[in-house]
Amino acid sequence: MSEVNERIKQIRQLMASAGIDVYYIPMSDCHNSEYVAAHFRCISFLTGFTGSAGHVIITKDQAWLFADGRYYIQAANQLEGSEIILMKWGQPDVPEPSAFVTDMAAGKVLGFDGSVVNAAFARKISRKAAGVIYNRDLVGEIWTDRPAQEFSEIWEVPLDVCGEKSEDKLKRIRVELEKAIEEDPKGVLNGSYGYFLNSLDDIAWTFNIRANDVPCNPVAYAFALISGGISHLYTNGKGYGREWYKNEDVTFDNVLMDTSRISYDTYRYFADQGCSIIDIKNPSTLMKAKKNETEKACLKEALKRDSAAVIKFMHWLKTNAGKIPMDEISVDEYLTGLRKQDDKFLDRSFGTIAAYKENAAMMHYAAVPGKASEIKAEGMLLVDSGGQYQDGTTDITRTFVLGELTDEEKKAFTLTAASMLRLLDAKFIKGCRGENVDYSARQVMWKEGMDYKCGTGHGVGHILNVHEGPHNIKWEIKESGPSAPFEEGMVVTNEPGVYREGKYGIRTENEMIVVPYMETEDGTFLQFENLTFIPIDLDGIDKQYLTEEDVKLLNAYHKLVYDTIESYVDEDLKDWLKEYTREI
Amino acid sequence: MSEVNERIKQIRQLMASAGIDVYYIPMSDCHNSEYVAAHFRCISFLTGFTGSAGHVIITKDQAWLFADGRYYIQAANQLEGSEIILMKWGQPDVPEPSAFVTDMAAGKVLGFDGSVVNAAFARKISRKAAGVIYNRDLVGEIWTDRPAQEFSEIWEVPLDVCGEKSEDKLKRIRVELEKAIEEDPKGVLNGSYGYFLNSLDDIAWTFNIRANDVPCNPVAYAFALISGGISHLYTNGKGYGREWYKNEDVTFDNVLMDTSRISYDTYRYFADQGCSIIDIKNPSTLMKAKKNETEKACLKEALKRDSAAVIKFMHWLKTNAGKIPMDEISVDEYLTGLRKQDDKFLDRSFGTIAAYKENAAMMHYAAVPGKASEIKAEGMLLVDSGGQYQDGTTDITRTFVLGELTDEEKKAFTLTAASMLRLLDAKFIKGCRGENVDYSARQVMWKEGMDYKCGTGHGVGHILNVHEGPHNIKWEIKESGPSAPFEEGMVVTNEPGVYREGKYGIRTENEMIVVPYMETEDGTFLQFENLTFIPIDLDGIDKQYLTEEDVKLLNAYHKLVYDTIESYVDEDLKDWLKEYTREI
Repeated sequence: MSEVNERIKQIRQLMASAGIDVYYIPMSDCHNSEYVAAHFRCISFLTGFTGSAGHVIITKDQAWLFADGRYYIQAANQLEGSEIILMKWGQPDVPEPSAFVTDMAAGKVLGFDGSVVNAAFARKISRKAAGVIYNRDLVGEIWTDRPAQEFSEIWEVPLDVCGEKSEDKLKRIRVELEKAIEEDPKGVLNGSYGYFLNSLDDIAWTFNIRANDVPCNPVAYAFALISGGISHLYTNGKGYGREWYKNEDVTFDNVLMDTSRISYDTYRYFADQGCSIIDIKNPSTLMKAKKNETEKACLKEALKRDSAAVIKFMHWLKTNAGKIPMDEISVDEYLTGLRKQDDKFLDRSFGTIAAYKENAAMMHYAAVPGKASEIKAEGMLLVDSGGQYQDGTTDITRTFVLGELTDEEKKAFTLTAASMLRLLDAKFIKGCRGENVDYSARQVMWKEGMDYKCGTGHGVGHILNVHEGPHNIKWEIKESGPSAPFEEGMVVTNEPGVYREGKYGIRTENEMIVVPYMETEDGTFLQFENLTFIPIDLDGIDKQYLTEEDVKLLNAYHKLVYDTIESYVDEDLKDWLKEYTREI
Repeated sequence: MSEVNERIKQIRQLMASAGIDVYYIPMSDCHNSEYVAAHFRCISFLTGFTGSAGHVIITKDQAWLFADGRYYIQAANQLEGSEIILMKWGQPDVPEPSAFVTDMAAGKVLGFDGSVVNAAFARKISRKAAGVIYNRDLVGEIWTDRPAQEFSEIWEVPLDVCGEKSEDKLKRIRVELEKAIEEDPKGVLNGSYGYFLNSLDDIAWTFNIRANDVPCNPVAYAFALISGGISHLYTNGKGYGREWYKNEDVTFDNVLMDTSRISYDTYRYFADQGCSIIDIKNPSTLMKAKKNETEKACLKEALKRDSAAVIKFMHWLKTNAGKIPMDEISVDEYLTGLRKQDDKFLDRSFGTIAAYKENAAMMHYAAVPGKASEIKAEGMLLVDSGGQYQDGTTDITRTFVLGELTDEEKKAFTLTAASMLRLLDAKFIKGCRGENVDYSARQVMWKEGMDYKCGTGHGVGHILNVHEGPHNIKWEIKESGPSAPFEEGMVVTNEPGVYREGKYGIRTENEMIVVPYMETEDGTFLQFENLTFIPIDLDGIDKQYLTEEDVKLLNAYHKLVYDTIESYVDEDLKDWLKEYTREI
């Protein structure tokens, strides 16, 4: 019997003795982080699957792993020989994991580790269960050589980078908390409240701290409690621990939390005490999305320096492809090396996607050491990468043309450029959301019967997570509601693409920031300001696929790139840059 | 004391004896119809206000009328001398009528006539009340010379016009009802159900009947009950009456209704009997929005004949303005006269808006007899009108240029044309809604800091209401949820505009129908097919405000107009039409 099946058997023994019928395991830490450090990778330990996202469900007789499209092949390989059934999450006939667990647990006893499952999700999957046991980390109980949770040095973001003192942020948060209490029918208006949060980017922003605890996210493991008069930040050695919410021996008339971001055990602790919980959106989520003047100035500089590094990379790549050995992993190392020359560089902002030729058709491709494609003077290389700097976070994709392209490829490349440029040029009335302006990016694609199966853009944090809400750009209006309306200072990516399985993948991605456009008798109008200054590889552009307006946009963009970035690039690159930002 | 104050005093006496603290009166019939016949205009009788929409709230000491922007001036005039406070509905500091009534009735006894208030609205305004008396029509009790409810002849829509037998429609409806029962936790799966509906367009579509009971809506006053085996249609003399829901002496395990479309008294009758009510959307709403092949063929013909009538009008107007006497009312009569020459003409589909010069800045302007503006050979005349025909319903707006325009006017006129044409040209993936494609119409406006304060389009019925859901085109995503995704066969208007108070108003409106565009590896794509074939007055177009793409769209549109409509217009008009559909 395989090692994996053996472990599952052990879990089943623990389930039996605890009276658990269905046990659920997420890929998550105590903070609902997008990236999960080794200590929290219970799924990897249990199943051998090393992907970055997944859900495992175990019953007396069966076990399932939900893996998304990035990992269908990898998961199938890694599960081989085990009894675990692979659920191809995202396929039309495969249920959502939450729906699957909910139905599986109907009338049964459901178990999970409530410290790593968010409260909203846990309540959802529990709603048909006959009983819930939420305080057993069964994988932890059998994981003898589990890596410890690692804590890095915490640093404070200086005021000339964050632009607002933590105490002032707390003041603003308290105003929102008090408003929420006032508006909630359960609210008790006497100033006594406790607001609990465990989402690390919210905490990092609120307290102006950063660290390196989660891969690619410059955050510190922490929990926070904010009440009327005081605020408590629990970090390593200072109250951090799974039962952090029991730290303070006080009672609150109002207990506030964002149940979609707080862990279930925290929620249950207060619910079981009979507290009436006021469910709010973390006020910091919208606040941190709207960058202040200091943050804007800093991130603009970071993005210019980052752009210069990518331009250097582009020049090196286009000059040397086919001449010197390189593969998908070595080009990532080369690019990261260029970024590291910046003395403010901290880390990558996410795992680089360097995908050659048909590999780029997989939107979230990650080259596997030993299996990376060799790069030659042909086809296209897609590089989606970003950096964490002491003054900003970047996310940028370019697809580089390394040889002759087919007509189909040129058309796809050119339409992608037009798509990105049209969205960058969008003007819209205040109140609009990503769901409204997405059309400006997709119209050129849809006209050709083409579509990319992902959103067009996401928010970006300031020295924080590369993916952050509450806004984004996509066309689907979710049942849970639309994204937040755009407001001045929101940073958002603009990344249309074309993906053709087995053939090629193209994505062109800039960051943009929402800025004022006009005030008129008809209202307030907003637009995007461009933040990324890197050429769109003109070797892929075929003018026949552009309207006259598109050509104007492309030329104006390239002029802006040259004029803005000229002083950031080495002297010997300027002629080359001039050529690659020329008018067409 | 004025007559109005006297009537309010009488209402207050009735309120006192009935124990009602707050009495609410809507402008509505028993069917939630958009247009309300004389019998149901309780507000007009009570307050003297003759507008087509409004809400009245009366307490012991005060009385309020909510009137929207169309009626601020008219309502102020008509309320003069009465104690009624005018609430300018739509102003930022004025609450929604429902919120106002809700708060006013908090802890008090609320009264209204539950037969003319829809259940969802009634439940909303009752939720803070200490008590609700919903079966007293107090205005009816004092309205001694109330006009009787008028019933017209009912006619059946032939199969070669409606394309589907009523029994087949009922079969499809029953499938949806049974699905709703199955999906509802309260549903009892034994085939016993009663589905109640009183919305006249749903009934007319389901039973393939039409009449002339409601102004501009070719519907019959009717109630309907659909159950597993049988269906009951209650019309004049055949069971129609306020207590229609008591007609059948049977019980149902499942009672279904669309509480946003059914009257409160119907809802309460079953709720008080302890029935558990399954709240659904009327299945016919989506079904009737998707026109079948027969309906499509019919409505296309109706729209061509209607277009020819408007072209005739356009020629007459542009030839004779300033030469013969005409005003806003006489041009409407002239246009309606042209429509009446069509032997399939039934009625106008709504009250014509013929608005000259600055009057057109009021989106829903209606000329008052004796006060209509005289039309001269200057400025612009906006005409928004439509017809009900035996084979279709039309809604079309053109703004006609009658003299020299200012640059500002030309710009506004030209951008409106570009806006309409761009939306008409939109291509989009299946699943998109009006909220997604609205950008295609507004982008030219927003770029100039301009915006029109209304939706861009609405659904249109087939020989039915000129406004119908469940789809529409607008950018705001309402809290109650987005509009329905576009599906093949949905008819929708496309009517951007520019409105400048005290100066001018421009609107250009065509009808369109959703048709397939492409099937590709990336999905199913849809587009709009044009249904209205009337020139956009080239005297208002200034090419400097159009992109090269816009010029192409305009020329292609005009070629299509000429080619399609040539055979529908009189010989002596063809040269003129050629000139007004020329390439620019």
